[in-house]
Amino acid sequence: MKLIDALNWRYAVKRMNGKKISGEKIENILEATRLSASSMGLQPYTILLVEDEELKKKLQPAANNQPQIVESSHLLIFAAWNNVTEENINDYINDIVNVRGVSPESLAGFRASLMTIVNGRTQQQKHEWAARQAYIAFGTAIAAAAMEEVDATPMEGFNPAGVDEVLDLKEKGLSSVTILALGYRDVDKDFLASAKKVRRQKNKLIQKVA
Amino acid sequence: MKLIDALNWRYAVKRMNGKKISGEKIENILEATRLSASSMGLQPYTILLVEDEELKKKLQPAANNQPQIVESSHLLIFAAWNNVTEENINDYINDIVNVRGVSPESLAGFRASLMTIVNGRTQQQKHEWAARQAYIAFGTAIAAAAMEEVDATPMEGFNPAGVDEVLDLKEKGLSSVTILALGYRDVDKDFLASAKKVRRQKNKLIQKVA
Repeated sequence: MKLIDALNWRYAVKRMNGKKISGEKIENILEATRLSASSMGLQPYTILLVEDEELKKKLQPAANNQPQIVESSHLLIFAAWNNVTEENINDYINDIVNVRGVSPESLAGFRASLMTIVNGRTQQQKHEWAARQAYIAFGTAIAAAAMEEVDATPMEGFNPAGVDEVLDLKEKGLSSVTILALGYRDVDKDFLASAKKVRRQKNKLIQKVA
Repeated sequence: MKLIDALNWRYAVKRMNGKKISGEKIENILEATRLSASSMGLQPYTILLVEDEELKKKLQPAANNQPQIVESSHLLIFAAWNNVTEENINDYINDIVNVRGVSPESLAGFRASLMTIVNGRTQQQKHEWAARQAYIAFGTAIAAAAMEEVDATPMEGFNPAGVDEVLDLKEKGLSSVTILALGYRDVDKDFLASAKKVRRQKNKLIQKVA
């Protein structure tokens, strides 16, 4: 499927039918998400993958009891790092050393610029920046699911503190920022399944300047 | 090309060769971006499309003089709304009425819930929320460009106030939050063109919880 066709096919599903996503499709969605662009390549977020039915039930009250939480096949919970530490940057530099086979010394300038950028921000600014990076991955995951013809509900309408508590995210230095429920639409129960997509008109959303 | 292959092919290009993107490819990228998911469907951002060479030169100093600004074919400047007003919500409700052929009365409940959500936020919270929505579109645009085999440089390293001034964004109630330069990589000048992609390992980025 072409990306435009996939994006026209998808919508924010309100009811799912409980059908499980195949291993191959979920792996493709996760791999595309992992490959998402990220500022300086740092990917300052962690994605919690929930498939367990009991855990979904525990999460549901913190997500306004939305039915997709338990009707989904998998939940992806995007959690931004609360802080970006020197250890995080060292881990990233080590990954570059290992993947590209270059010396740590050759990355000293890049490492220093990363430290300068990160240390120039307050913890709140670092968290907000991390959240925006998570949203790039979120956008990628939504597109990737549609390309696999897997339905999805992007969810911001939840209580982050409640989700964090169920998943012990605070202890992990994480805060949930958005959720993607993955599964299959229940056409009979979802009044939006047959609704035409509404998007801002092109000449309003995209303005040519010269 | 499959999405995973496209995402593996792409990287944040450091030097571009000035080659123009075909009309068909740029329209496909813009249409995919327009179709991006957005919280409640509102799309609270505007994308400025810059192709004019003189304007790119004026923008370059505000973008740390990065060469891709002038070596690109097109710039997409993602600008979040500074506020979300009742008029914005009315415009959106009108769009739904027109596209779906439903009555405004049938959307009264949805309109009220939009107003409640929006009015429950400070202007700063609305702007940050709008910025995150812009990042979903940004992620979609990055994936769409790669699918078209068009190179891109996602840029956060710029002075938003400077960009806003050149484009008179403040008067339009907008603030630039991120830029996507679109064009073609200059393989000879870009040392990253042959570098292996580095991404967080799957078991670190994506954690299964049960």
